[in-house]
Amino acid sequence: MIAGFFDRLAAAIERSGSRLCVGLDPHLGGVPAEELAAFNRRLIEATAEFACCYKPNIAFYEARGEAGMRALRETLAAVPPDLPVILDAKRGDIGSTAEAYAAALFDDLGADAATVNPYLGHDALAPFLQRDDRGVYILCRTSNPGAADLQDLHVETASGERLPLYLVVADYARQWNARGNIGVVVGATYPRELAAIRIRCPELPLLIPGVGVQGGALEEVVETAENGKPAGFVVSVSRAIVEAARPGEDPFVAARAAARRYRDAIAAAARARR
Amino acid sequence: MIAGFFDRLAAAIERSGSRLCVGLDPHLGGVPAEELAAFNRRLIEATAEFACCYKPNIAFYEARGEAGMRALRETLAAVPPDLPVILDAKRGDIGSTAEAYAAALFDDLGADAATVNPYLGHDALAPFLQRDDRGVYILCRTSNPGAADLQDLHVETASGERLPLYLVVADYARQWNARGNIGVVVGATYPRELAAIRIRCPELPLLIPGVGVQGGALEEVVETAENGKPAGFVVSVSRAIVEAARPGEDPFVAARAAARRYRDAIAAAARARR
Repeated sequence: MIAGFFDRLAAAIERSGSRLCVGLDPHLGGVPAEELAAFNRRLIEATAEFACCYKPNIAFYEARGEAGMRALRETLAAVPPDLPVILDAKRGDIGSTAEAYAAALFDDLGADAATVNPYLGHDALAPFLQRDDRGVYILCRTSNPGAADLQDLHVETASGERLPLYLVVADYARQWNARGNIGVVVGATYPRELAAIRIRCPELPLLIPGVGVQGGALEEVVETAENGKPAGFVVSVSRAIVEAARPGEDPFVAARAAARRYRDAIAAAARARR
Repeated sequence: MIAGFFDRLAAAIERSGSRLCVGLDPHLGGVPAEELAAFNRRLIEATAEFACCYKPNIAFYEARGEAGMRALRETLAAVPPDLPVILDAKRGDIGSTAEAYAAALFDDLGADAATVNPYLGHDALAPFLQRDDRGVYILCRTSNPGAADLQDLHVETASGERLPLYLVVADYARQWNARGNIGVVVGATYPRELAAIRIRCPELPLLIPGVGVQGGALEEVVETAENGKPAGFVVSVSRAIVEAARPGEDPFVAARAAARRYRDAIAAAARARR
């Protein structure tokens, strides 16, 4: 029997002593498609010791066409088997289309987990959630400025509560979590919202992007997210690792040092909390 | 200068006398990846006379891996140049990732328009909306049962109004439409919600899936959507055309007949409204 995603993630966190998720997001205009797989392979080799998982955002590979998608496949193959891969795809569609997306991400590409968008509701997520062996991170409160447009709107719930939409989504995530394979995405750039989610859903695993270049404050975020659970949270860092090198510096040496620093900073903040 | 998407769509509607958007959604377990491009080419040849645009859902191609994506490219190349292509991708991501998705759909794949998800807010849609020459259909009220989970929640707006979330999204669509390249996706399966959107946003172009297999009532929907504008609405039909053939029947002959029936039924309902 294959363990569930969060068991595998917890094992990787335990083994590595790290809650660092390394984002593999090759921005356009950077490494060309033909060199991407080799670049990512070296990046993974350089950082694997300090990471608990990897998170490629599929957009950057799709934008490079066939060569990009080939590079994604080779990148996924280069991740050590004991480190889970979260494919950041933010998918959401209905019925048979949702099934096709789940098949594309989990079966064709072989991701261990995927990010999904909640706007279309429970049936759009069902083909993802049905997979006991895979993880699903539902977008809850994202790290971008426009997140407030919808996610912060105040909503009347069936029980008469008045809640921001992102907390309604957190409630749904908990309610839909019959198989224990759901987490939520919460941006580090909004620590107050992160705290509200953690208070409302103390058990829910968090995937936290927005540290590093986006400017989220690491210590505050970790202290808020820490819930004593093995897979309670991971912090995702992409550019601040992948593009850590100063001019003339070896990108992989710099990435390795940055990954180590993030692992240690997260661990120190988590210890301070306990 | 290249005309905007809705100008091109209006011209195609005018020329064809059709508001039928043919969905190219090859369900898994049907036509295998290697035969898909040839199948779609024949399907397009059979239906082009009765369509104003085509809408492949990218999920079904992604799920078939590299061969599927090759089939999508060949399918897009087979659409006559005067018929726009709406790529149903329901994308939504932030910053540079949103830019990468826009590049993937508009530049790499060459779609004339794309569907996008509003959950992440305005900056997630900006790279799409900035493209004067391309169209953007924002998911508003989708056709699936789970749509109600988020989209029907009642929200307090800044102005103190109490509105279902899908009407807030319709308001945003109107507000963000500085370049005149925005429409919204509204499922035919919820005619009351469709009517509420049409009343609130009389000018907004609608993309209406959910007729046919999903069971939306064509006449009622067309009468509600018709606003006298050249690109005011299109009705998207997929399975009821692509899988129209009874056992033993030629699929392309059946698809052609079904496309003609839908074109005529939409036109008759629109005339009844005027």
